[in-house]
Amino acid sequence: MKFCATCGGAIEQRVPEGDDRRRFVCGDCGEIHYINPRVIVGCLPEHNGKILLCRRAIEPRHGYWTLPAGFMENGETTAEGAARETLEEAAATACNLRLYRLLDVPHISQVYVFYRCGIEEGRFGIGPESLETRLFDEADIPWDEIAFPTVTEVLTEFLDDRKQNVFPVRHSVISLPDKFRKH
Amino acid sequence: MKFCATCGGAIEQRVPEGDDRRRFVCGDCGEIHYINPRVIVGCLPEHNGKILLCRRAIEPRHGYWTLPAGFMENGETTAEGAARETLEEAAATACNLRLYRLLDVPHISQVYVFYRCGIEEGRFGIGPESLETRLFDEADIPWDEIAFPTVTEVLTEFLDDRKQNVFPVRHSVISLPDKFRKH
Ligand SMILES: [Zn+2]
Ligand SMILES: [Zn+2]
Repeated sequence: MKFCATCGGAIEQRVPEGDDRRRFVCGDCGEIHYINPRVIVGCLPEHNGKILLCRRAIEPRHGYWTLPAGFMENGETTAEGAARETLEEAAATACNLRLYRLLDVPHISQVYVFYRCGIEEGRFGIGPESLETRLFDEADIPWDEIAFPTVTEVLTEFLDDRKQNVFPVRHSVISLPDKFRKH
Repeated sequence: MKFCATCGGAIEQRVPEGDDRRRFVCGDCGEIHYINPRVIVGCLPEHNGKILLCRRAIEPRHGYWTLPAGFMENGETTAEGAARETLEEAAATACNLRLYRLLDVPHISQVYVFYRCGIEEGRFGIGPESLETRLFDEADIPWDEIAFPTVTEVLTEFLDDRKQNVFPVRHSVISLPDKFRKH
């Protein structure tokens, strides 16, 4: 951030009075421009015991499989956003959404919210951000080609939970592997 | 948003190619500046059966009682943020944090995440954003002076859950009252 979105003035980085961390502050009008974590909302759609995955037509992780998910938009709820992403990426209408997982990914300042859901009439297609979409039996899930560690974690836990038919809402943190950490 | 934070160019509002909603787009460098919902993280701190509330020293809702909560910062987890707010507003060290509530407030594009917690050694004080902090018995909670509907909802559900000693992680939506809705 170099320029103030409000007045066009030059941005400086400093700790504002009464604060305890560096912020982007406008040198001209004094406005403080906060940068906040982003929310990613998604679904884990299940139909006849199979799980709907999408193969990504976009970067990052082009060609890898993922659950339908994306950035939450202003003015919508987490559930509405999760359903919207499912429609956009897999042309499927999510139904019976139930909160399932909250995942923190602090090194990239993201919070993931996943809902379990069904697929209306079992119908789905291929959205513009997908190369392919498919219902997977547990045995066929392409574990080596999953796009993101968040998706691997949610899928793994879901399959475990399904054995007991109990789906507690859990929270966890996805950490950066040690080798990537700053010391 | 009037100016591009990257190049200082003039911002226009339009639907970018491949998108389906209006965004802030720079007329000079073409950068799309997304505005995303914000996450508010907070604690419901309990000690010896009493609940810790803070009376706000800041706007909005100056003088009203609230649970310790505030905007999540980049680089932290939701639990770390909730603990940080508890330390900042009530000088209390949160312990034994357990995810409790996800609340959507779509008309202001906010997502609230609340954790239940204890207070280390039962010690607390008054942070710079609080006029007063106090442990309340259920019977003494100042229901008419609670700052936000989210706090009223979380407190009400917690007291209900406590009767059963079962604390399921729930999700709900706080809607704008009908009289304030745009038609
Ligand atoms: Zn400015
Ligand atoms: Zn620009």
